[in-house]
Amino acid sequence: MYSDKMYELGSKSSVIREIFEFGLKRKAEIGDENVYDFSIGNPNVPAPDCVKEAIVSLLENETSTYVHGYTSAQGDMKVREAIAASLNERFDTQFKATNLYMTVGAAASISLCIKATVTAETDEFITFAPFFTEYKVWTEAAGAKLKVVPANLETFQIDFEKFEAILSPQTKGVIVNSPNNPSGVVYSEATILKLCEILKQKSEAYGHPIYLIADEPYREIVYGDLEVPFLTKYYDNTFVCYSYSKTLSLPGERIGYVLVPDAMADSKKIYAAICGAGRALGYVCAPSLFQKVVMKCIGQTSDISIYKKNRDLIYEGLTALGYDCVMPQGAFYLFVKALEEDANKFCERARDYDLLIVPSDDFGVKGYVRISYCVSTAQIEKSLPAFAKLAESYR
Amino acid sequence: MYSDKMYELGSKSSVIREIFEFGLKRKAEIGDENVYDFSIGNPNVPAPDCVKEAIVSLLENETSTYVHGYTSAQGDMKVREAIAASLNERFDTQFKATNLYMTVGAAASISLCIKATVTAETDEFITFAPFFTEYKVWTEAAGAKLKVVPANLETFQIDFEKFEAILSPQTKGVIVNSPNNPSGVVYSEATILKLCEILKQKSEAYGHPIYLIADEPYREIVYGDLEVPFLTKYYDNTFVCYSYSKTLSLPGERIGYVLVPDAMADSKKIYAAICGAGRALGYVCAPSLFQKVVMKCIGQTSDISIYKKNRDLIYEGLTALGYDCVMPQGAFYLFVKALEEDANKFCERARDYDLLIVPSDDFGVKGYVRISYCVSTAQIEKSLPAFAKLAESYR
Repeated sequence: MYSDKMYELGSKSSVIREIFEFGLKRKAEIGDENVYDFSIGNPNVPAPDCVKEAIVSLLENETSTYVHGYTSAQGDMKVREAIAASLNERFDTQFKATNLYMTVGAAASISLCIKATVTAETDEFITFAPFFTEYKVWTEAAGAKLKVVPANLETFQIDFEKFEAILSPQTKGVIVNSPNNPSGVVYSEATILKLCEILKQKSEAYGHPIYLIADEPYREIVYGDLEVPFLTKYYDNTFVCYSYSKTLSLPGERIGYVLVPDAMADSKKIYAAICGAGRALGYVCAPSLFQKVVMKCIGQTSDISIYKKNRDLIYEGLTALGYDCVMPQGAFYLFVKALEEDANKFCERARDYDLLIVPSDDFGVKGYVRISYCVSTAQIEKSLPAFAKLAESYR
Repeated sequence: MYSDKMYELGSKSSVIREIFEFGLKRKAEIGDENVYDFSIGNPNVPAPDCVKEAIVSLLENETSTYVHGYTSAQGDMKVREAIAASLNERFDTQFKATNLYMTVGAAASISLCIKATVTAETDEFITFAPFFTEYKVWTEAAGAKLKVVPANLETFQIDFEKFEAILSPQTKGVIVNSPNNPSGVVYSEATILKLCEILKQKSEAYGHPIYLIADEPYREIVYGDLEVPFLTKYYDNTFVCYSYSKTLSLPGERIGYVLVPDAMADSKKIYAAICGAGRALGYVCAPSLFQKVVMKCIGQTSDISIYKKNRDLIYEGLTALGYDCVMPQGAFYLFVKALEEDANKFCERARDYDLLIVPSDDFGVKGYVRISYCVSTAQIEKSLPAFAKLAESYR
């Protein structure tokens, strides 16, 4: 007398969880510092000082009712105004508070966009491998289907031929995640231009808009002078789903937003449907204190230079050892070709060297592993000999 | 190309929202202090000192990663252990951390219980008028139906005859809310015993468990020596849905839990289904800082004596003016008979005296109004002459 589907979702031991459990056991045996845990995408860089300062200032200077009370369902007006102003300054856009809906993080943001736009069981959303496996869960929970475009293993940009083969009149939306988890790749402007061109053509051909859902928790975590295109400027029917989890190192605080631009077809009605989806899914009013914290921390990030240092160290270290790595331009993941066909077996062997890494199968690609380098630089330095031994074991 | 259902949910201007908007306008005209706003269930009593102390202590003494990082999907183990221990001490129960799943508040808790247990479109949940209107939204979002047992206008306990007439083999669960919003009534032990007896009989007769979902954000807000029965002690298949919104005056912080007792049929599988529902609805890992704050504040509440004082003042004040009021034993609402048949018209006339009160229609009862007395005592004192004039206008 329970939902088999929910039971299956809740009980299926994910590979990452299994690695996590193994890690706990192994750390207890040989000490935390001797297990090279690269399995978790949890920022290890502390939140910037502004977070603590904002919290203390709010507690000292504002009433409890303001700090901890309900905001409106869509979020505090001044918070949304401040976020809109910051986006406008950075991207030369014209957003207002009324374009933003505050959420309990990117998972909620994406779930709301899907729930608000699904109209039939035949609706399909498309994403590009490698992709975050929960997209499938959220799409199916809203009664639609997720179709996956196989990865372009050369560049990890979009394979447009395969994309066009999957597009159909049933396509309701397309989910992109750039900078990407797990590849670390950022979609180039050329990729975005071509993607949006196809979406425009197909929307017209099918006689209905195809929504672009931009999952952007890593937007600010990019290296070098790279510009991450802001998608509403390229395509009107774009939802931007943001979370402060990664850039402010607040993954547990569940704070983010959905942006619904005025340029979107039926923008006001879509925004109302997002509000309705919030009610239906059981979350209205994102955490109050952290709404105000992100307002006070606008324009700030954690110390991203640490991730840059880590990226260079692990990318150069593994490449020197002969590993075939995708050069990460953003996020804090390195996507590495496994040294045997079966990435699961490769990850199992890595455990013999106390290296905890995640096989790519769950991300919709076979034969790769994800290494999360949001860890201490010392761990990376110490782990390189273990990676060397792992490579040797295949020679 | 959006969901009509979500649009309707998000755009339907609720009566409370309309009153809220009117209040904003009127306050701008004549000053906040001259509008007697009894429409909102947002605690005005500040959070207890322990909240601020806990936050400051966490920020001073713990790492950013611990304070703001992901916990496991079901919540931090030590937090859940502490909550279980506190429940065990108070109610002589035997819960463990593994019986608890931390959520973004009671709305999420109830949504998870429904989502985890719905197996067919014909599934029905039953609740008792007056009831919180969002129950209908959450039940329908999970693909089931909500049936409402009409109120017992004598006592606002349960009308068992009408309840039994609505129970059927399709009944999947029963949602109770005691202390009740909006009536302020607490179900007596006799009511609970009879309710549970019927649920046991019918579960057996139908050959499947009927789940009891206890929505308990007001558990600690009761007056006098009243004991609120702890429902898992009366009925095995009980989910307890709790939120710290009201008792710690943290309504905006979205922190609560679901309790799944071991005694529930298929307890472990149901717990897994709750975890699965969390994934499907897009919320896992309740806000991290506030998980730890509630652990540090266990056993504490806001200053409830203020609500007691308010209750006595408004109950006695309105009764003396000839209003017919339900004596509230808990929560912070007074349920008052309107002075004309149509509660909406009565509330509209109340506005002429700058009294903002909520008609009962949305709570599934006609001819009453809800007065939220979680306001300043001064507002209640100042409002009594306005209530007197309102009553006079009907003579």
